[in-house]
Amino acid sequence: MKKFCMTLAVLMLATTQAMAQEAIFERRDQGSPRFNDDGTVTLSLRAPDATRVDIVGDCVENMHAQLTKDGDHWSYTSPVLFAELYNYRFYVDGVETLDPSNIERSRDVRSFMSTFIVSREVGDQGYLYANHDVAHGNMAQVWYDSPSLGLTRRMTIYTPAGYDKGKKYPVLYLLHGAGGDEEAWPTLGRTQQIMDNLIALGKAEPMIVVMPNGNASDDASPLLSGLSKKEKPKATFEEAFDDIINYVESHYKVKKGSKNTALCGLSMGGYHTFKISNLRPGRFAYIGLFSAAISMGRGNQAPVQEQIAGNPAFAKQIADVFAAKPALYWIAIGKDDFLMQQNVSYRAYLDSQKLPYEYYESEGGHSWRNWRIYLSMFAQRLFKD
Amino acid sequence: MKKFCMTLAVLMLATTQAMAQEAIFERRDQGSPRFNDDGTVTLSLRAPDATRVDIVGDCVENMHAQLTKDGDHWSYTSPVLFAELYNYRFYVDGVETLDPSNIERSRDVRSFMSTFIVSREVGDQGYLYANHDVAHGNMAQVWYDSPSLGLTRRMTIYTPAGYDKGKKYPVLYLLHGAGGDEEAWPTLGRTQQIMDNLIALGKAEPMIVVMPNGNASDDASPLLSGLSKKEKPKATFEEAFDDIINYVESHYKVKKGSKNTALCGLSMGGYHTFKISNLRPGRFAYIGLFSAAISMGRGNQAPVQEQIAGNPAFAKQIADVFAAKPALYWIAIGKDDFLMQQNVSYRAYLDSQKLPYEYYESEGGHSWRNWRIYLSMFAQRLFKD
Repeated sequence: MKKFCMTLAVLMLATTQAMAQEAIFERRDQGSPRFNDDGTVTLSLRAPDATRVDIVGDCVENMHAQLTKDGDHWSYTSPVLFAELYNYRFYVDGVETLDPSNIERSRDVRSFMSTFIVSREVGDQGYLYANHDVAHGNMAQVWYDSPSLGLTRRMTIYTPAGYDKGKKYPVLYLLHGAGGDEEAWPTLGRTQQIMDNLIALGKAEPMIVVMPNGNASDDASPLLSGLSKKEKPKATFEEAFDDIINYVESHYKVKKGSKNTALCGLSMGGYHTFKISNLRPGRFAYIGLFSAAISMGRGNQAPVQEQIAGNPAFAKQIADVFAAKPALYWIAIGKDDFLMQQNVSYRAYLDSQKLPYEYYESEGGHSWRNWRIYLSMFAQRLFKD
Repeated sequence: MKKFCMTLAVLMLATTQAMAQEAIFERRDQGSPRFNDDGTVTLSLRAPDATRVDIVGDCVENMHAQLTKDGDHWSYTSPVLFAELYNYRFYVDGVETLDPSNIERSRDVRSFMSTFIVSREVGDQGYLYANHDVAHGNMAQVWYDSPSLGLTRRMTIYTPAGYDKGKKYPVLYLLHGAGGDEEAWPTLGRTQQIMDNLIALGKAEPMIVVMPNGNASDDASPLLSGLSKKEKPKATFEEAFDDIINYVESHYKVKKGSKNTALCGLSMGGYHTFKISNLRPGRFAYIGLFSAAISMGRGNQAPVQEQIAGNPAFAKQIADVFAAKPALYWIAIGKDDFLMQQNVSYRAYLDSQKLPYEYYESEGGHSWRNWRIYLSMFAQRLFKD
């Protein structure tokens, strides 16, 4: 117990100093994550008095392992990891703890994870998510008036390197999923890194990327608004979407017209993409559904193919979208995604009508890992005609 | 041990889902912090198997207390707290843990803290730091060329609500301290909240606030650059400061001239403010030194008054600054600040030369609590002539 108290005293002295002074005075162990030569990664934690430390994360086989103790430290060494971004969290005697040695953390709605990236070579998936010494675009959190919703709302906007030189750029509207907000794509989705790196590699055209908040009752992320929902919104997000386009086209140097406009989204944002594009046939030449929740209306549980076939107005919207000959209509989903059946059924409808789309089926499920991959694939296809 | 394993299984199932799905599916306890009617705040944590839980923070008497256990939960109730922003951290059997119920967290260099705000009435200090339903300015992370340093560097820029209407605005350059970066004032310093709220209350003029990275060898925060320092910089930050002004004045709608330009900074940023203003007498009508490290050169340990008096070139710079009659030369520091003696000595020099400044001495030491207060006071004094 004496050692315990000493340890705690040192920790708390450091913390007290950190709060009384700038944290430059605080020394922290920087030993975790440690990238080993054999391609494994060792994650470790100092916890002299713990009886058990667990790790949960996508860098761990079957998502979960116990750490082993050596002196005061506990550690876990991963299998050989392929190039990717990984998340993890410790449980010390059952209590959630992020890795105190690792400053890379991300928030997903109300939960936090420690993060690291494995990259083996230029251009691999991990490389795309990391910060490199390339030309960087700017990120802005901007407030726009949404008359349709009666709110002033926040969104995040990426402008590519060189934007200040005066040229006009095409626009990608990039939508998050349920529970997400205008910070989701910039943080979990690594939008800036993916776009900066793809553009620097010559694999994507420079473009503006607009990341709005898809929750029509909110003005901004819960970090700004608290978690209290406002009253029922005056319009749906998909109806109110023109407010976003109007703001962007009046405030940014934008190449207008459908050939210069792309729209995609994940999960609920895939639903939004589906509805927004259906309501505006010919408005977007590039449409991407990532793990999309596809339904003709919230709560409609019938198979998607039947929902559409049974409703001539819906069928006409979709026919009109394809009649405008989008340059790319892209559907992507993971093999294990719980929304797979909706996507199978929607593709069956498109097939039955001979409406042309591209389909990409990945490993895995309904996850940010997949959505980062889909964005990096979709972005490379845009605005090249 | 059975209960422990059940607990862990539930936690890890939730986490596994959170990583496989969007975190909307993860349920989290939202009971901490709990704001009590008597003005105290209760902070709590579920840790059935811990033998001891400590809390360290500025909401705790003498910075440290042990939590008490009731069933599976541990809790601590603060004294009655005045309106402020508070930080804390738990140690569960000595292992650092943030409050898993509280999504408000902030990073100070390499360390994280849980955060909450106490506000009793409109306009109090806590109110200024919180997000309210007022007109919001935009925040942008922009990359600018710094030819003096041979780097493309990142800074954060606040533009006030209504900026897009076309008017020009005065500019405040706001500098961080040692160990900080261009994310320090926006996060720990609550710049957006302070400015939005002061402007909405009619207490500050709308202005642009520029928050550069003061580490001349870095291009951006360590979250973007890794922690590797580049080689010795080609110039000092204070010498290279014109690159920042040039970027801002060529890219933003700026009211130019000294009467529309303010400069302030904390700690190392106070040193930068001192040097930048001395190198450019008459350039800034408003100069603020917050807990400033005052020295005529790094490593010079002689009393500041002697350093200046013994060097005619330095003395002339300072005389020239005051000869240009700045509207406000403001020195602020906490009673317990470890830089107090430098400030006492500098003020003695100014007094000996009959050079007019204003002095504000607060409680406390070298802390973000003071710097937020100083910003909210200084901002109210700007651009009113």
